[in-house]
Amino acid sequence: MKILALDTSSIVATVAVLDDEKLMGEYILNHKKTHSQKLMPMMEEVLKSCELSPKEIDVFAVSLGPGSFTGLRIGLATIKAMAQALDKPVVGVSTLEGLAFNLVHCEALICPIIDAQRDLVYTGGYQWKQGFSKVVEEEVIAIEQLLMNLKSRKEKVIFLGDALEKFRELIIRELGDLAIFPPKTLTMPRASSIGELARRKVQNGELRKASEILPVYMRKSQAEKQWEERNRS
Amino acid sequence: MKILALDTSSIVATVAVLDDEKLMGEYILNHKKTHSQKLMPMMEEVLKSCELSPKEIDVFAVSLGPGSFTGLRIGLATIKAMAQALDKPVVGVSTLEGLAFNLVHCEALICPIIDAQRDLVYTGGYQWKQGFSKVVEEEVIAIEQLLMNLKSRKEKVIFLGDALEKFRELIIRELGDLAIFPPKTLTMPRASSIGELARRKVQNGELRKASEILPVYMRKSQAEKQWEERNRS
Repeated sequence: MKILALDTSSIVATVAVLDDEKLMGEYILNHKKTHSQKLMPMMEEVLKSCELSPKEIDVFAVSLGPGSFTGLRIGLATIKAMAQALDKPVVGVSTLEGLAFNLVHCEALICPIIDAQRDLVYTGGYQWKQGFSKVVEEEVIAIEQLLMNLKSRKEKVIFLGDALEKFRELIIRELGDLAIFPPKTLTMPRASSIGELARRKVQNGELRKASEILPVYMRKSQAEKQWEERNRS
Repeated sequence: MKILALDTSSIVATVAVLDDEKLMGEYILNHKKTHSQKLMPMMEEVLKSCELSPKEIDVFAVSLGPGSFTGLRIGLATIKAMAQALDKPVVGVSTLEGLAFNLVHCEALICPIIDAQRDLVYTGGYQWKQGFSKVVEEEVIAIEQLLMNLKSRKEKVIFLGDALEKFRELIIRELGDLAIFPPKTLTMPRASSIGELARRKVQNGELRKASEILPVYMRKSQAEKQWEERNRS
C-alpha cells in the first residue's frame, strides 16, 4: 500500500510518500512562498523521484486541521481532487496529532500549540505509554488557561508547534523546569508523521471517500464572525 | 548563519538547509537511484525552493560515517568540493549521532545500529539527560556481543538504523520488552538532524577547512583487506 500525505496547516508545506516497509520520500519547505505556488510542484517532485505516478497511490492522507484556514483549504482541495479523480480513498489526520507524533517515545506529556490568533491556541495532549495516544482532548483555549491546566498536572510537558516562539517566555515563566523545548527541526509539521498515522488508521478501517472529508477549523473564521455580527440585529 | 547539511551514509539520500531560526527545507529520498544520480539534483531543488544560491551558505555540514563506503565518499566529495570552491568551513557529524538525534527527549538509551556486513554493526549509545549526549562509545561490534552488553544494562533501549530489520527478531529474542522499535519514519538518516548537530558544533568552534575533513569508516574496506592479504607473505 502506497500513501501520499501532505500537511499545509501552517506556513510549512510538506509532502511524503510511504509504502508498507518505509518512508520512500519526504519534502518539507518552510519558506515564504504560498502553498498555492509550491504544493503541486513539491508533490510532482517527490512522486517523480520515487518513480511513481499519482495513479499508483492507494491512499491519500491529509492534515485536517486545526490551523491556517487558507492553508487547510488548499491542502484539502488538492488531496480531495486527486483522490476523486483517481477514485481512491482519503484518510484525514488531526494536525495536532501529527505534530505530536514527531516526538516518538518521549515520556513527557506532548503538547502541540498552534496559533489561533490573539492569545488563543489550538492544543491537545499526547503521550507514549504502551503506544501513542491522546490524553487531553483537542480544543481552542487561551494560552494562560492552558498553562494553568498544565501547571496543575505537575508533570514535564514538551511543547511544539507554530505558537511556540510567541509564547516561549510566558511558558517558561509559568512552568519553569517542567517545560521542555525540543530542537527546532522537529517542532513543525512533517508529512511523514501524517502518513504514518494514516497508515495506522487504514489498518483500523478509517478510510473515507473524498467527498466525506471536512476540515477541522475548531473555531469560526473572522469572516464568519463578522457576518454573524452584521446579521444579529 | 545558513547551514547546508547532507547524509549519504546509507541507501537514503537527504539534504537540509537550516538558518538560525528554523529548518528552512529538507528533502529525504529512500529509493533505489544511486547517490551520484540524485544528490546534486536534490541539493539544487532544496536551494532553489529556499531561494538561496550556494554562495549564501555559511557552513557546509556532512555525515562523516560510519556507513556505506561509497555513499560516504560521494557525500564528502560533494560537500568538500562546494566548501572549497566557495571558501567556506565544513562541520563533520557522526552518522550514528545524527541518527540518534532523530529521537528527541526520549528517556530510553538510544542505540543506532548500522549494517557493517556479516554479523557486525556500527553502533553507539546516546541519551537525553540534561541535554543530548553520548553514553556508549561508537564502535564496530558483533550484534550478539552488543545485545549481551545491552542486556546487562537492564534498561530500555530504543533501536534505529538500517540494520534494524535484519536483526529485529534477534533483538526481541535477546532483550524482550526492553527493546523499543520506533515508527519507521524516524529510523533512517535525516539531514535536518545532521544540520542541527552541526549548528551546535559551530557554537563550540568545531569548524574545519574542507581539506581537513575525513570520513569515519571504523573498519577497513573489503578491497583494503584483500590487498593486505595478498601482500602479507
